Amino acid sequence: MEAVERIERALADVLTSVEASVETPGGPPGLASAMRYSVFPGGARIRPRLCLAVAEALGDDAPSITDAAAAAIELLHCASLVHDDLPCFDNAPTRRGKASVHRAYGERLAVLTGDALIVLAFQALAPTAAVKPARLAPLLTVVAQGVGSPNGIVAGQAWECEPSVGLSLYQRAKTGALFAAATAAGAAAAGADPAPWHALGELLGEAYQVADDIRDVAAEAEELGKPIGVDQLLGRPNAAGQLGLQGAMHRLQELVTAALASIPPCPGREGLRQHILAEAQGLLPRKLARPAA
Amino acid sequence: MEAVERIERALADVLTSVEASVETPGGPPGLASAMRYSVFPGGARIRPRLCLAVAEALGDDAPSITDAAAAAIELLHCASLVHDDLPCFDNAPTRRGKASVHRAYGERLAVLTGDALIVLAFQALAPTAAVKPARLAPLLTVVAQGVGSPNGIVAGQAWECEPSVGLSLYQRAKTGALFAAATAAGAAAAGADPAPWHALGELLGEAYQVADDIRDVAAEAEELGKPIGVDQLLGRPNAAGQLGLQGAMHRLQELVTAALASIPPCPGREGLRQHILAEAQGLLPRKLARPAA
Repeated sequence: MEAVERIERALADVLTSVEASVETPGGPPGLASAMRYSVFPGGARIRPRLCLAVAEALGDDAPSITDAAAAAIELLHCASLVHDDLPCFDNAPTRRGKASVHRAYGERLAVLTGDALIVLAFQALAPTAAVKPARLAPLLTVVAQGVGSPNGIVAGQAWECEPSVGLSLYQRAKTGALFAAATAAGAAAAGADPAPWHALGELLGEAYQVADDIRDVAAEAEELGKPIGVDQLLGRPNAAGQLGLQGAMHRLQELVTAALASIPPCPGREGLRQHILAEAQGLLPRKLARPAA
Repeated sequence: MEAVERIERALADVLTSVEASVETPGGPPGLASAMRYSVFPGGARIRPRLCLAVAEALGDDAPSITDAAAAAIELLHCASLVHDDLPCFDNAPTRRGKASVHRAYGERLAVLTGDALIVLAFQALAPTAAVKPARLAPLLTVVAQGVGSPNGIVAGQAWECEPSVGLSLYQRAKTGALFAAATAAGAAAAGADPAPWHALGELLGEAYQVADDIRDVAAEAEELGKPIGVDQLLGRPNAAGQLGLQGAMHRLQELVTAALASIPPCPGREGLRQHILAEAQGLLPRKLARPAA
């Protein structure tokens, strides 16, 4: 099965598992609808695809665990988008080319949808224990660390509430942490020690954030499916603003090179390298992308 | 160790574990401060005390797991208070006798604090695996079900966004679900099947909600540490509003009786009965409370 198809199915399975059915008496329909709206149709699913790519490079001997890990990572990403879009943060009118959740469902359901997606992400990991009991705890831990305080994406967002923060520290938490959780969770899902896999995710997360900053200043809104120039408007740190467009492009290349070099020894190292190179190309706005060297 | 002392220590340990230290580079100080502010000083800690009481009635053979379960339940309760108090919901100025989190730290940190507490609750369960590996998955599952969609407290709050909802269904999700998670988690922490323990929590949760409704119409604001008459103001379902004060008092008594009858066979059944009777007395406003019959 293709990675994207596999992820969409894993996400659908997890959402369906908590939706109203004959067995589980109905919950509030607005919440169920908003949860589905937040997750489908997705964006590039870059984090869960990375999680899968790492697990596959390590043999992927328990695919249902890998699916759960990838789904959890993506659900947490979706939750963060819903909350980041709220009026008190970015007040974003659109996301992934359609109305943001709070615009479509109201602010209250947007808060609750983010909450429910976070809970669902952890709930999705529980069946791991039925397949490989020893993998649940490390998986739970690396996923939680990627999201929570002090260094996860929630903390990254909380840095925006501080009077000042270094660009690198901010980006590591705001974006790098969930990428690191994706690579570490992919390793944990495949039964490997997740620790050596954090660096790969952190570097790719920083690369992704730099690319996002570049897109924020250089892309077209319709290509992004969300407004551009938002960082400058909100006075947020932006690599392309701080380093210039060329400087940011150079930094992006450095980060991808470092990411490739950081891949721990594993049976599928070469396939993973190719996955990362292809991803890196996809990160740039069309007018800046060029074929991989 | 007294139950309350045990819970405060468990909560402090969990929070300390994710605060900045030499080992973990510092996260955003505002988030760490707001998380601590949300959890300490606590309210009555009624849910984690219930969780402990159930585990103790079943032998409590792995106290560190019980502590983690109780802490997780309370962290999720605190998270729900922080989000329920937000301007888009109750816009509560005070909570537990001090400024609500969004008043003290701003709306953005209040959203993030709730998110981070949810993540921390699940993270707190992971060490379970080092003591009794088989208990982590059931614990994770019952806790998640108490919070998420379709029947957890987040869903309960989402019912407030629907055009109409039955009082019982609303209260079961809004309050009963986390009480049910508390009793089920206490059982799971002690290695018992959590399923037979749900009813006890559900009934106590409904009793608690009825008592809360009674307090909302009959207590003094300073006794509650939060504003009174809020349900009527917000047009929310309230048992005392629907049944009258006497009717609500009668309903409360019925629910406590049913809860006592629902306790599954266990070595510490009588102690648990006494715990519940004492709790029930504590739920009523001072002017309505009378010694247990």
